[in-house]
Amino acid sequence: MHRRLVSSNLRIQVSATAQLVFSVAVSAEHEPAQERLSLTVDGDPIDVEELLAPNGGRLHRAVNVPVGQLIVDYAATIDGQAPPAPLQGIDEVLYTRPSRYCDSDRLAALSGAHFDGLEGSALVSAVRAWVHDKIAYRSGSSRGVDGALDTYIARAGVCRDFSHLAIAFLRARNVAARFVSVYAPGLKPMDFHAVTEVWLDGAWQLFDATGLAPRQAMVRICTGRDAADTAFMTTLGGRTQLESVRVEAQIDGDLPSDDGLGLSLLS
Amino acid sequence: MHRRLVSSNLRIQVSATAQLVFSVAVSAEHEPAQERLSLTVDGDPIDVEELLAPNGGRLHRAVNVPVGQLIVDYAATIDGQAPPAPLQGIDEVLYTRPSRYCDSDRLAALSGAHFDGLEGSALVSAVRAWVHDKIAYRSGSSRGVDGALDTYIARAGVCRDFSHLAIAFLRARNVAARFVSVYAPGLKPMDFHAVTEVWLDGAWQLFDATGLAPRQAMVRICTGRDAADTAFMTTLGGRTQLESVRVEAQIDGDLPSDDGLGLSLLS
Amino acid sequence: MHRRLVSSNLRIQVSATAQLVFSVAVSAEHEPAQERLSLTVDGDPIDVEELLAPNGGRLHRAVNVPVGQLIVDYAATIDGQAPPAPLQGIDEVLYTRPSRYCDSDRLAALSGAHFDGLEGSALVSAVRAWVHDKIAYRSGSSRGVDGALDTYIARAGVCRDFSHLAIAFLRARNVAARFVSVYAPGLKPMDFHAVTEVWLDGAWQLFDATGLAPRQAMVRICTGRDAADTAFMTTLGGRTQLESVRVEAQIDGDLPSDDGLGLSLLS
Amino acid sequence: MHRRLVSSNLRIQVSATAQLVFSVAVSAEHEPAQERLSLTVDGDPIDVEELLAPNGGRLHRAVNVPVGQLIVDYAATIDGQAPPAPLQGIDEVLYTRPSRYCDSDRLAALSGAHFDGLEGSALVSAVRAWVHDKIAYRSGSSRGVDGALDTYIARAGVCRDFSHLAIAFLRARNVAARFVSVYAPGLKPMDFHAVTEVWLDGAWQLFDATGLAPRQAMVRICTGRDAADTAFMTTLGGRTQLESVRVEAQIDGDLPSDDGLGLSLLS
Repeated sequence: MHRRLVSSNLRIQVSATAQLVFSVAVSAEHEPAQERLSLTVDGDPIDVEELLAPNGGRLHRAVNVPVGQLIVDYAATIDGQAPPAPLQGIDEVLYTRPSRYCDSDRLAALSGAHFDGLEGSALVSAVRAWVHDKIAYRSGSSRGVDGALDTYIARAGVCRDFSHLAIAFLRARNVAARFVSVYAPGLKPMDFHAVTEVWLDGAWQLFDATGLAPRQAMVRICTGRDAADTAFMTTLGGRTQLESVRVEAQIDGDLPSDDGLGLSLLS
Repeated sequence: MHRRLVSSNLRIQVSATAQLVFSVAVSAEHEPAQERLSLTVDGDPIDVEELLAPNGGRLHRAVNVPVGQLIVDYAATIDGQAPPAPLQGIDEVLYTRPSRYCDSDRLAALSGAHFDGLEGSALVSAVRAWVHDKIAYRSGSSRGVDGALDTYIARAGVCRDFSHLAIAFLRARNVAARFVSVYAPGLKPMDFHAVTEVWLDGAWQLFDATGLAPRQAMVRICTGRDAADTAFMTTLGGRTQLESVRVEAQIDGDLPSDDGLGLSLLS
Repeated sequence: MHRRLVSSNLRIQVSATAQLVFSVAVSAEHEPAQERLSLTVDGDPIDVEELLAPNGGRLHRAVNVPVGQLIVDYAATIDGQAPPAPLQGIDEVLYTRPSRYCDSDRLAALSGAHFDGLEGSALVSAVRAWVHDKIAYRSGSSRGVDGALDTYIARAGVCRDFSHLAIAFLRARNVAARFVSVYAPGLKPMDFHAVTEVWLDGAWQLFDATGLAPRQAMVRICTGRDAADTAFMTTLGGRTQLESVRVEAQIDGDLPSDDGLGLSLLS
Repeated sequence: MHRRLVSSNLRIQVSATAQLVFSVAVSAEHEPAQERLSLTVDGDPIDVEELLAPNGGRLHRAVNVPVGQLIVDYAATIDGQAPPAPLQGIDEVLYTRPSRYCDSDRLAALSGAHFDGLEGSALVSAVRAWVHDKIAYRSGSSRGVDGALDTYIARAGVCRDFSHLAIAFLRARNVAARFVSVYAPGLKPMDFHAVTEVWLDGAWQLFDATGLAPRQAMVRICTGRDAADTAFMTTLGGRTQLESVRVEAQIDGDLPSDDGLGLSLLS
């Protein structure tokens, strides 16, 4: 895999002393050739603490962020691909549970109606195709509180909604599935992206129900149950306003070809 | 703390080969003086695998459980108390996130309306008192798919609902809180019980919004985001029917006194 | 049409002076050969007022019902059939609106996904078939607060749920549809029944998405937007407990044959 | 009461032959000194039919509206006040029922928790004050599918949400209440407005939980169960886009004084 350059820049107005957590750095299994993270308020650097989340996510927390304009600036250069995500027995149980935005328990009857009798890769392919075909990608069509059932009802959403619904369908069939935030070279318009991993044939396999970017070039940021575990910014106190988000993800050379339909390992 | 004897017995009719996961054993930080777990189908033992969940929960998984009557029988004898749950920096972030049954994002405005301006122990006391006073304990009043917002609306629930609502209120104020399933000597009628832990003053502190049993005598089973992480039985395939549940939890000597209102460490 | 004998008997425990409204009498367009209604509390008759609802429903209201056992006893003998329900221009607008249990606005995308491109009788047939085929009739599977979207999600319900979902699908396609409570000879087990009317080809045409009883023998009780308009008993103050409901509906001679699939006028 | 001049102007892009219903004309009990309604598509008049809704609303329906720019232009001059809305016994039953956006059945426990023990004018005053004090008026904060429970949870809304919540609270206490759309001189910014009528002391009495305009000057447009019955524009087929809405409502002389807290008859 060719070298990828990924970066993100957040501008946040802090109007009351705040605590913030960011998930913009690449996941711990990547070994960036170069990496840079800076947080400044009105130009002055502030302290930041790195916390390792389950599954390798690297969170960056800043407490007592003073009033002013906070800029989070991150960039990394990634060569090659990370090794496959390690398998842990407990994951097969954890990731079949319903979560905030993957309310598989409420989707049980619907998932059964659509996918009854399917198993293994046939099930995963059917789920991926259903979400891809039936859900319209529509910017701004969903709200932060919307979960998989809401997406099912609206038949529209953005990348996080596609992944939530696919995950919920799978968990409702007792298949472990999880949510992955990524940098995605080739995505248009460029933004943070969200895809799905499913435990299939003894490995975490990745698919993108939106089909909007080639999987081989993606760079993992964070892995979790759903978007609650991978939000690029979380405000835990204080008052903040996100003013702008700029994301870039480029690959040296041509984008790999990905028909977006088959299953393959992320790395 | 005096010796406690805890046990549970589940009878399950399996009508199609099933995979099941149980969370009935005491948490890993306990060191039982005696412990026994058996799973039998129509009297014959079946294989069971122990999986360690995050936060010390010990799950027992049985795959390919044949058709018949499955009996899960567990008993343990606990002397003294476990050491305090270890603190991990990441927990302060993880346990402020909304989860399936603690939908703190949807309760944000309501939690703000009730608890605006409160912090620390004053906030925790107010949350505990609100849930205790405003929610009626009513057996059978809630469904498995109900979360904290549903409990708020219904103003009634059982122990899991009390804990879910308290947790959601706290997370909505950016305070880390989590769900604990326990054996609870003194509970009437006896059953599995659910309580709440909140990160306060540098420690996980436990409270029981139902006030139905003394905290000092409780024995921890599993700790997680909400009831999705601690269900005593989960069916992951096949067809099962839970026929009976019998729980016992006794303490040598008198029950400790707990006014149910103050905060204290579980152990 | 042969003579039909319909009756109902409600036993209600009144534990605080109550106001109650009943919808058990046949609709005003019927002209019963015989009819009897009595309300007694502990054997003594109480006053009852008849109110005419929109669309011909005859409601019976009792105020200041004293503490005791209230028995509502109704019977009527119906010969022939009522004339077709009169058409009113405004109905075509009123009955396309969303109502409490026919939340057609929330089902808009789903109704579009299932029935896009269909109109007139083809649409009605498709809606009826979808509800009949995809929703499982399951006693006790729904709650009084459940509406059409809940039924869609659960894929199960009772007769009111079948009708609510059919109505909501139709309204979401801008077709006027309404809810009818009926006595239904042939229904097993016997109970109050609920069916659907749709404005098609210049007339209110009736269908029964459950297909559980022949339409020709049905006797109309009340017509409205949904079950909120046709509940057989409503408590408006006081405290009551419904202890038993007994419904009977018989026809002289054989039950008419109704394949339950085609459309036909109720009368 | 001084003369009031009310008018509205809607511009709608019709991109596929449409059927539309408008509720912009003053209610039938008003006797305008002058009144004018015109519907044109690209400047050419189109046919319009007047339908009388329950409770005096005058709906205007246009079928087969061709592609182009549809302009609905309405103006009326009102002297004096309409006689009080006539009372009908059935209304006391009809308007205690839950409706699409006044889901009083789901708010039963909450209404009981807030208003238990109150009756009559004390109840109405308490409901009005609660909604006025606890709900923040915030433009754009709600969606068209939101009902009273959603407003309760969000603690924010616009005029229709205030009225829906007040109505739902009252119905949950078995008090008849309904929704009224009005022209409201003095409202800022000027728009269609929504208020509440409650059956109290033998009359429909009006209150405005927003307190944004004096009630004496209001001119009634339409009365119904909730916003589903009074929408100023409904599209029943075809494809339309509302491009602009301009509402005006003026009174000769000074605005009457209304503290917005007491109860008074609309007229």
